[in-house]
Amino acid sequence: MVRWEPDAAGRLRKAAVELFAERGVEATTVAAIAERAGVTERTFFRYFTDKREVLFSDQGEFASRFVIGVEEAPADASPLDAVTAGLRAGEVLFAPERREGARVRATVIAANPGLQERELWKMAGVADRMAAALRERGVAEPAATIAARAGIAVFSTAFADWIADGQARELPELVEDGLRALRSLTVA
Amino acid sequence: MVRWEPDAAGRLRKAAVELFAERGVEATTVAAIAERAGVTERTFFRYFTDKREVLFSDQGEFASRFVIGVEEAPADASPLDAVTAGLRAGEVLFAPERREGARVRATVIAANPGLQERELWKMAGVADRMAAALRERGVAEPAATIAARAGIAVFSTAFADWIADGQARELPELVEDGLRALRSLTVA
Repeated sequence: MVRWEPDAAGRLRKAAVELFAERGVEATTVAAIAERAGVTERTFFRYFTDKREVLFSDQGEFASRFVIGVEEAPADASPLDAVTAGLRAGEVLFAPERREGARVRATVIAANPGLQERELWKMAGVADRMAAALRERGVAEPAATIAARAGIAVFSTAFADWIADGQARELPELVEDGLRALRSLTVA
Repeated sequence: MVRWEPDAAGRLRKAAVELFAERGVEATTVAAIAERAGVTERTFFRYFTDKREVLFSDQGEFASRFVIGVEEAPADASPLDAVTAGLRAGEVLFAPERREGARVRATVIAANPGLQERELWKMAGVADRMAAALRERGVAEPAATIAARAGIAVFSTAFADWIADGQARELPELVEDGLRALRSLTVA
């Protein structure tokens, strides 16, 4: 029996992150996540293969935003301008109302070295896909890989600032700050 | 009884990487590593806590090279010039005769997602330490973190090129190529 679950995946993600923050990842069971989300364990396993995957399951969509931004940049854009378009397309996923959830998720990840490594892996995957999109635009190597990785460095730095305690500024502004810093690295 | 073992750690590293490449990490035991290195298991555990650590155990010295390079850059160097000095100090560890060993190690890591994540973690740690050294020089955030991460992006990209099949050029030349690419990202 497959019941219709309005945004079951979204509720499972929220329930899992809350429980991870309250109890730790180890002590949280799939049964507890499903119960808090108001669905069955079977529903959980329709969306996720294990409890840790909940924290990373939107990786494909996440990366695609950045890639589409690069692809849709004007044909005459410099590599860094194309990367900038990618970051602007990606940051749209992180509207002000998502900051608190992002903070809780980051706290969970910061408490677990294995999850920190997986988060780095996720961002490296986004950079790889952006580099491929830059090569499609005719950007040669190593410029394509370096542009994509420098862009992800800007994004990750801005994201960490965005979810830091007491930070009032929003992500797009912090990303622009980072891009300005990247452009002026050569200035003493 | 502690016997003197001339470069036991170095021989254990070499033996471990060879065995990992031949048999895979899972199938390689500490006993086999120690035997091939001509030492006892007890000697192995004087240097390493587990077999995977052998692949990453020189992390502290590795990072320190980059940091010292940043610290010793001229006082009036731009952030990117200081990072460049860090990369040049780090690349000294990878003389031509180390390329084959670096290739074998990379093959082992590429076959194992957990080790790939740990390698990313290692390089992120080097970037963190370089960023701290830049802040010590008076570079503000986010420029310090972005400069360090962009520099590590250049280094990692050059390193992957260096150990690619058929690559004849040496690491310093590939790093300079990457630095030039980073400096010209804004040019369409």
